[in-house]
Amino acid sequence: MNTILVDGVADDALPVGDRGHAYGDGVFETVLVQDGAPVWWALHLERLQRGCDVLGVPMPTASLLRSEADSICRDAARAVLKIVLTRGGLARGYAPQAGAGVRRVLSLHGAPEPDADACDRGIEARWCELRLARQPRLAGIKHLNRLEQVLARAEWSDARIGEGLLRDSAGDAICATAANLFVARDGRWRTPALDICGVEGTCRAWILGQVEVEICRLVPADVESADEVFVCSSLRGILPLARLGGREWTVGPMTRSLQRRLWREVPALSPSAGFST
Amino acid sequence: MNTILVDGVADDALPVGDRGHAYGDGVFETVLVQDGAPVWWALHLERLQRGCDVLGVPMPTASLLRSEADSICRDAARAVLKIVLTRGGLARGYAPQAGAGVRRVLSLHGAPEPDADACDRGIEARWCELRLARQPRLAGIKHLNRLEQVLARAEWSDARIGEGLLRDSAGDAICATAANLFVARDGRWRTPALDICGVEGTCRAWILGQVEVEICRLVPADVESADEVFVCSSLRGILPLARLGGREWTVGPMTRSLQRRLWREVPALSPSAGFST
Repeated sequence: MNTILVDGVADDALPVGDRGHAYGDGVFETVLVQDGAPVWWALHLERLQRGCDVLGVPMPTASLLRSEADSICRDAARAVLKIVLTRGGLARGYAPQAGAGVRRVLSLHGAPEPDADACDRGIEARWCELRLARQPRLAGIKHLNRLEQVLARAEWSDARIGEGLLRDSAGDAICATAANLFVARDGRWRTPALDICGVEGTCRAWILGQVEVEICRLVPADVESADEVFVCSSLRGILPLARLGGREWTVGPMTRSLQRRLWREVPALSPSAGFST
Repeated sequence: MNTILVDGVADDALPVGDRGHAYGDGVFETVLVQDGAPVWWALHLERLQRGCDVLGVPMPTASLLRSEADSICRDAARAVLKIVLTRGGLARGYAPQAGAGVRRVLSLHGAPEPDADACDRGIEARWCELRLARQPRLAGIKHLNRLEQVLARAEWSDARIGEGLLRDSAGDAICATAANLFVARDGRWRTPALDICGVEGTCRAWILGQVEVEICRLVPADVESADEVFVCSSLRGILPLARLGGREWTVGPMTRSLQRRLWREVPALSPSAGFST
């Protein structure tokens, strides 16, 4: 089994000068693999397409990506498929070269074990000091300029902290370092609008198709005063917040209901999945 | 002559998983090479060090970088040396791995010919539509998250446009896509403060050591109403603005004086340098 494909060829190297390495000039996906197949493939592909459109990078065909994905995923019971698309060519200088095409790198990685305790009782989160810059031109897509997330994630090393929540420079609550954010109050779900900054996650997209959610501006007080709060990602599923600063929660019925629905749809995200591999 | 060194070894490939490719998790320099030696080496090194400090990446020793730079530059009469430092290791996930070290890539490229007409009569510039996001944590350093510059530079393909000027999201004038910005009015130089966004260029740093310059907030009207305006970079030197929207300038005496001083210090940037190689 080949675990890395660069432009369809088994390889573990990139050319020096790749625009991803030079400028972060590309987009990526991390896709959960379950029983040899990618989970939420259509949602990941949609986001790749949006990212390519924003950057002016030609999107590979869906059938090409799927056939390459299948070829490296097919023997994996549970894994992570990473797809990186960068602007092709090796041109130095910011100007995108016309007709430079796209370079694609697909690689297979071990998946994090589902954390039964985190799923069941929830995680402790913290507010990060770093504030996300407001850049509507790059909002929503999963581009390769991720220094803000790296610096935010570097703020803590205490293993008891399960995620860091991020505010933008205006003080709005946006997301976690590698997850989206949902809050419930008075029986209604809300999640931050991601038209100024943040990444539109695929688990978030799946949830928006399952239940009614208001997409709106949220401030930290909306999070801290919520009845239920969770963060979610395509690799870790729905992780309820048990603690944030001075506030503590027990996992509520709305979150539990969504988790159960998720685990039925994607067994690889359920707390028992770790034991079956 | 080796023209690419990866961690000191002649190579033209990077490992898939390099943090530069994954997240733009690193910093870079483009250094003018003149008669086999890097120009403004100390200024470039200072900025690399500041960038490494911000990202928490260990800076290689100055002597190691210099010896590698010399080994690929020594036969070049006129060239560009690119240095890319990325966080070491191949860890997936935003969290920086403790002790991951640093990966260094040095490569040699052709230098742009000095443009005698641009030096002499000035260039036409435009205001870019893209607004720089305000992120003080990453301001000033030359990190690898450069999608804003790529998108801004993609706004025009007309070869008569020599640079695009950038405003930030608050509307302040900050820089050009690959150059810094200076304006003169009533005999005094001013240049934008770069503590919120923008890159502190080495040519800018050289100029700040030559003449008195006020570092301050500038708005587009300050640029358009200036007596003299130029953009500058370590690879193209000082390029006066001849035109910006409806405004036209002839090159003024303050700019000419700085240009002459620059060309004496760095002959490779003078309009005649192109003819000697």
